[in-house]
Amino acid sequence: MAKKKIAFQGERGAFSEVAVQDMTGKSTLPVPYDSFEALFDAVENRQCDLGVIPIENSLVGSIHKNYDLLLERKLVIIAETQLRIVHCLMAPKGVPFSRITKVYSHPVALDQCRNFFRKHNTIAPISYYDTAGAVKMISTSGSTNSGAIASPYAAELYDMKILKKSVEDEKSNYTRFLLLGRKQKKCGKTAKTSIVFSMIHEPGVLYKVLSVFALRDINLTKIESRPVRKKTWQYHFYIDFIGSVDQKHVQKALGHLSEVTHFIKILGSYPLTVNGG
Amino acid sequence: MAKKKIAFQGERGAFSEVAVQDMTGKSTLPVPYDSFEALFDAVENRQCDLGVIPIENSLVGSIHKNYDLLLERKLVIIAETQLRIVHCLMAPKGVPFSRITKVYSHPVALDQCRNFFRKHNTIAPISYYDTAGAVKMISTSGSTNSGAIASPYAAELYDMKILKKSVEDEKSNYTRFLLLGRKQKKCGKTAKTSIVFSMIHEPGVLYKVLSVFALRDINLTKIESRPVRKKTWQYHFYIDFIGSVDQKHVQKALGHLSEVTHFIKILGSYPLTVNGG
Repeated sequence: MAKKKIAFQGERGAFSEVAVQDMTGKSTLPVPYDSFEALFDAVENRQCDLGVIPIENSLVGSIHKNYDLLLERKLVIIAETQLRIVHCLMAPKGVPFSRITKVYSHPVALDQCRNFFRKHNTIAPISYYDTAGAVKMISTSGSTNSGAIASPYAAELYDMKILKKSVEDEKSNYTRFLLLGRKQKKCGKTAKTSIVFSMIHEPGVLYKVLSVFALRDINLTKIESRPVRKKTWQYHFYIDFIGSVDQKHVQKALGHLSEVTHFIKILGSYPLTVNGG
Repeated sequence: MAKKKIAFQGERGAFSEVAVQDMTGKSTLPVPYDSFEALFDAVENRQCDLGVIPIENSLVGSIHKNYDLLLERKLVIIAETQLRIVHCLMAPKGVPFSRITKVYSHPVALDQCRNFFRKHNTIAPISYYDTAGAVKMISTSGSTNSGAIASPYAAELYDMKILKKSVEDEKSNYTRFLLLGRKQKKCGKTAKTSIVFSMIHEPGVLYKVLSVFALRDINLTKIESRPVRKKTWQYHFYIDFIGSVDQKHVQKALGHLSEVTHFIKILGSYPLTVNGG
């Protein structure tokens, strides 16, 4: 039987690939793509079975690009997970820590390890387009004074030695990932639903929108807004709430919601595993 | 009398400098800074009198970095404005359009001019750290086949010729800017107030928060959330509403708000000029 193909964005060894394994097991085939658009394309036109995207980091905030793509494209959310982001300093085998003078990584990762660079001020942080891409590059460069900051999995994949584990400033650094497919799956009773909508334009309408949920004791776990193109200073709102579209009270809430919105899109109902908000 | 010094981020000729002129007149002295942190520092320690920051673009969304700084730092908002973002293709005088093969600009600006590059596919877009910085660079490079995309003001400042005006895809492209100072100013009755707060942790609390405003017919124009550091999946909420802290009903609303929040910070009350939401 052919392995299931799971699209992710980034180089092999990226944190997204770890999320692929976490949500689909180790027997699927992770397929790397350059951009999130290419990932959505690959799943939509059946080159891949499923896709995994990061949606939010607990320090940096939401990945807005992916909120926009969930609105524009046809894929639905079928699962979520969160990973603790552990940054490791690694180098090719045989390169000792004392020789390292340059460390490559994605600028966001470097920024999350400021204390490390303050403590070791002979080591220069150098921006690279991707964490795992930096590891791949130093693994073939032949340099004897360069390291990279990336996931422990990237060290394993590119046969690097981990010189320092967990060099990030803040240990409570989590990224939430979504598993996307072409078709909604049945999910159990402990579910979360994600929707996006645009409200009618009148005073106090956001309050009315939230009443829809509050009056039915439906808990929200996340609210996010993004600008509407061509409608200056109007917004699409994204809401995650506890419950599934299979449940009667949720269907009633969505019916009520349609009275105060121009449009609603259901992004998916999926098992609740990350209880934010 | 010494000119008032107004801090902005970017190179001379940046859109932020146009916003400085718009909000403080042409007789102030705009002072460029490398980063938003440096701009906040400059106003806080009195190197500059006031500062101007972009807070939101109608296509790209909020500038989250500046929301974080408004929370952490001590400056208050004393005015706002919006500018239509008009991107112009420019080159050193004597370089005709037909010779241009490379166009430098900030990646966000290039991305907003995709149709131009699709139509003129012999011209390569090249990412640069800043729009006005790109103009400065080509003005001294001696290149005879390079152009830049930036504001008409940058063309004037660096003595460039505008080859094509308004090359952006989307004409409804506005950026909202804030004027920051060290002390709150009195503002008239047609005012807007910006606040940030974190809510107590219980179901339906966002609904209670919005009730505070809805029950007093106070209109919200913007709501935004950002992650709280060290508290995974908890958020700070930023709200803009119509009214001033000098008004009784607003003071009562803020008193009521304190019952359902851990902390509230008032970012400023200022004359209403941009009516978003």
